[in-house]
Amino acid sequence: MEKSDLQIERAKYEPKLPKALQGAVKVKEGEPTQSVDNQEEIKKLFPNTYGMPLVEFVPGEEATQKKMNVGVILSGGQAPGGHNVICGLFDEIKKLNPENRLYGFLMGPGGLVDHNYIEITADLLKDYRNTGGFDLIGSGRTKLEKEDQFEKGLQIIRKLDIKAIVIIGGDDSNTNACVLAEYYAAHKYGVQVIGCPKTIDGDLKNDQIETSFGFDTATKTYSEVIGNIERDCNSARKYWHFIKLMGRSASHIALECALQTHPNICLISEEIEKNDMTLNQIVEQIAKVVAYRAAQGNNFGVVLVPEGLIEFIPAIGRLIQELNDLLAAHGADYRNLDKDAQRKYIISHLSPANAETFATLPDGVARQLSLDRDPHGNVQVSLIETEKLLSEMVGDLLAKWKKEGKYDGKFAAQHHFFGYEGRCAAPSNFDADYCYSLGVSAAQLIANDKTGYMAIVKNLTAKTDEWKAGGVPITMMMNMEKRNGEMKPVIRKALVDLDGKPFKTFAAKRDEWAKNTEYVYPGPIQYWGPSDVCDQPTKTLKLESEK
Amino acid sequence: MEKSDLQIERAKYEPKLPKALQGAVKVKEGEPTQSVDNQEEIKKLFPNTYGMPLVEFVPGEEATQKKMNVGVILSGGQAPGGHNVICGLFDEIKKLNPENRLYGFLMGPGGLVDHNYIEITADLLKDYRNTGGFDLIGSGRTKLEKEDQFEKGLQIIRKLDIKAIVIIGGDDSNTNACVLAEYYAAHKYGVQVIGCPKTIDGDLKNDQIETSFGFDTATKTYSEVIGNIERDCNSARKYWHFIKLMGRSASHIALECALQTHPNICLISEEIEKNDMTLNQIVEQIAKVVAYRAAQGNNFGVVLVPEGLIEFIPAIGRLIQELNDLLAAHGADYRNLDKDAQRKYIISHLSPANAETFATLPDGVARQLSLDRDPHGNVQVSLIETEKLLSEMVGDLLAKWKKEGKYDGKFAAQHHFFGYEGRCAAPSNFDADYCYSLGVSAAQLIANDKTGYMAIVKNLTAKTDEWKAGGVPITMMMNMEKRNGEMKPVIRKALVDLDGKPFKTFAAKRDEWAKNTEYVYPGPIQYWGPSDVCDQPTKTLKLESEK
Repeated sequence: MEKSDLQIERAKYEPKLPKALQGAVKVKEGEPTQSVDNQEEIKKLFPNTYGMPLVEFVPGEEATQKKMNVGVILSGGQAPGGHNVICGLFDEIKKLNPENRLYGFLMGPGGLVDHNYIEITADLLKDYRNTGGFDLIGSGRTKLEKEDQFEKGLQIIRKLDIKAIVIIGGDDSNTNACVLAEYYAAHKYGVQVIGCPKTIDGDLKNDQIETSFGFDTATKTYSEVIGNIERDCNSARKYWHFIKLMGRSASHIALECALQTHPNICLISEEIEKNDMTLNQIVEQIAKVVAYRAAQGNNFGVVLVPEGLIEFIPAIGRLIQELNDLLAAHGADYRNLDKDAQRKYIISHLSPANAETFATLPDGVARQLSLDRDPHGNVQVSLIETEKLLSEMVGDLLAKWKKEGKYDGKFAAQHHFFGYEGRCAAPSNFDADYCYSLGVSAAQLIANDKTGYMAIVKNLTAKTDEWKAGGVPITMMMNMEKRNGEMKPVIRKALVDLDGKPFKTFAAKRDEWAKNTEYVYPGPIQYWGPSDVCDQPTKTLKLESEK
Repeated sequence: MEKSDLQIERAKYEPKLPKALQGAVKVKEGEPTQSVDNQEEIKKLFPNTYGMPLVEFVPGEEATQKKMNVGVILSGGQAPGGHNVICGLFDEIKKLNPENRLYGFLMGPGGLVDHNYIEITADLLKDYRNTGGFDLIGSGRTKLEKEDQFEKGLQIIRKLDIKAIVIIGGDDSNTNACVLAEYYAAHKYGVQVIGCPKTIDGDLKNDQIETSFGFDTATKTYSEVIGNIERDCNSARKYWHFIKLMGRSASHIALECALQTHPNICLISEEIEKNDMTLNQIVEQIAKVVAYRAAQGNNFGVVLVPEGLIEFIPAIGRLIQELNDLLAAHGADYRNLDKDAQRKYIISHLSPANAETFATLPDGVARQLSLDRDPHGNVQVSLIETEKLLSEMVGDLLAKWKKEGKYDGKFAAQHHFFGYEGRCAAPSNFDADYCYSLGVSAAQLIANDKTGYMAIVKNLTAKTDEWKAGGVPITMMMNMEKRNGEMKPVIRKALVDLDGKPFKTFAAKRDEWAKNTEYVYPGPIQYWGPSDVCDQPTKTLKLESEK
């Protein structure tokens, strides 16, 4: 298979490890832990994996290890560095005992249930060191939730003589990892389950997890192209670029990219929800900036839009809710109407407040909300092209202002959506080191007979040497939340903290960025060269560590 | 103004020059030249700038130079490295005489006509060394074509005591540079005009120009994100990504990106035109690959689509032609019909062949072709989202095949359009060096009293030391072509040569790339690090130099 020059040279990179993981390792245990909320319920649900201590690795002495085989699973969306977690895991278990074997379950958790796997060997792995993607074993979105899945998984675990499963995933996958750990512990199967914090979205973080892996590389890749677009924008001086960014519900990615590139506008869903803003208010806010800049002769700008925006606009959220109910109840007679009649039908059946919201929506979006539904009858919010919706509505408002003599500029928009462009980039030095360290930590948690833990590495804004590796009981990060109408134990998702330093830093600057043109151009990720350029963590992580 | 770490470090890069430009320079002249075609007509139109010799710079001896001021203009779309051309020009004229001044005309050729300019100083320039974008002085698309523009320009040229104007632009801008040079020469104004070959599209190349600047950086940036998408595609194994790439008419960008990333499919407009393929044939060709891969269990892939595709499909070209004529003649009665009636009206009024083509188009595209027109009443081809059009039609055909039992896979598409993401990237080492050398060459052409020349640098696949710098008479690259119904002297645009090595290399491999998954991941441009990674020219340039 042909490789690029960068693939060939980057394969030679040797990830740096925290001091404690460089040689033999021993475990230092802390006090028993509690879940972040709903302690009684969580304790009841996880009698075997609740209350365990935090674990830190410290230098230890060489000791012979019993042979152990390990299975690894990639779960959910791709994130840069997944392969390096597997490399760290592989290298460490081989270091502990060369006869140890690592098995990779294929295409996500489904591979465990359906017994699809490969053995991961040194020879296979050499092409995947420091690479992006999850293509070594693939990923998938099957949820490990049911006992028959756990039992089916156990069959292949027994067959391969596997001591522990490592699940590399986001908040839901790690919640499920803990459920699995609890199940195997309750049944005394002697099989351990260890999680690893993966997601580009940055929403898996808390007092124990400083950042999930992949966030660094993905946001740097998006910031690269956003910076390039800003420079184009500032050179051609004739377009407003509306850029939607992946990231699910949370706006961490948009915020980090804003801190890196200083766009004219960056919407933060969490703030919009808190302030109970309507779509029209958001549109007006953008249009005011456009008009201000036009008055300065600057008919150009850049707007960042988080993927989750639409659901966070309270009025739209309420509209979607009522639409789902309405069309479930009246689907049949509605479906036989033509498009104009459908629109009238909806407006006449909605509550006045929601009808008003619906009436303000451009045709295309109204149609998406009222027609295109998923198999459960729900609106497919992710299909709504928010970036186009916003620019269209801004254009309409500006046209109105022009007629009223309030605005005299030109408004032309370009649209972008970045997501797939960054999820599989070759990991930055930070993610390459962080992921490799997580893999080594996972191996050590297994060797030390831990289950229901997530591998963690802390102190990430210091030099790699000074990073602190260890493990956190997954139950410690849980609380009870409503999911599909039922209260479930889940890892609390981290949305953007409006009192946190990253948001406050952005908020203090954004008026200036809106009025002036203060773009910053981060450029592409550099793997070699000055350390200032190559080895910086994200702005978010730096600001958060300045507590 | 805040800068990124990369901006700060990259500003320190000192572009490398060909040996001949490193010290004092003298001119070596070749034989008189001829235009590539229509010699008599071109000679008649350019009596003062026709037939001049090719110029090569060779090491010379220091000589005192008369003071000279220079004006510079950026024309047309942004391309990485434009600022370095200006840096090279500035440094060289200051080296020749520190009292020389450089003026930058603002927002393109219009700045010359309207007397908008700034003086470019060392202090101003220090923030723009090795940066992308044209934001130092801006660019624009005003065409310098009319005598009153030339005369207005002359006023400011006289006022600033300017000896020569450097126009950095694509084929049209350089054609106009030559018309201006001829006009000033014919009127004995003593003002020189020098061109510089700029365009990311790669269509300004010929026996004298090996590549236009910006093509290298732009295609590397697009290849980075295409590679990332391929890796995502290959990890998730559930999407077909349709990626449209900027590049105007020519498919050079798509071809170069294909050579770098090995996608499953890359359409080449020039080949489609040559083979007189219909849209349906293209769709069928893609669908066959999708079906083949589905049968192997691979319901994923990547398709590259050149921006200019739609106009190169002969049947669509003919349809657009007839639609333009039809709607110009029958616009009024047509406009009053509702949408369904409009569609019927069009089909009933078109010739049978074009009506058939029209009937095969998805609704959205049919509407764009029949409704949205530019101020001259022409279809706005660039607004057609070819990537969505193709995937929609492929999806329809696969659904039909599924019913007929010929296909049994899943087809889900994602769409991307890359253009603005790469036009203003910080120039690669190649473009940084090449552009700086072009600027130095331009200064030397001026100092040596040349006009109607384009600055060139050749032997670009060798080490920078061995590059050959000089100038080519712009008339040498001209022929007569029809533009808006009139025969005009223009620089011949280079489309993809179907007998050339880049295309043949691609054509020899593409079946393999379609069936197998042989993605290559070029990663982001590296400015530091192993020379293999940092200092490679494009695959296109390498293959073309292997003649």
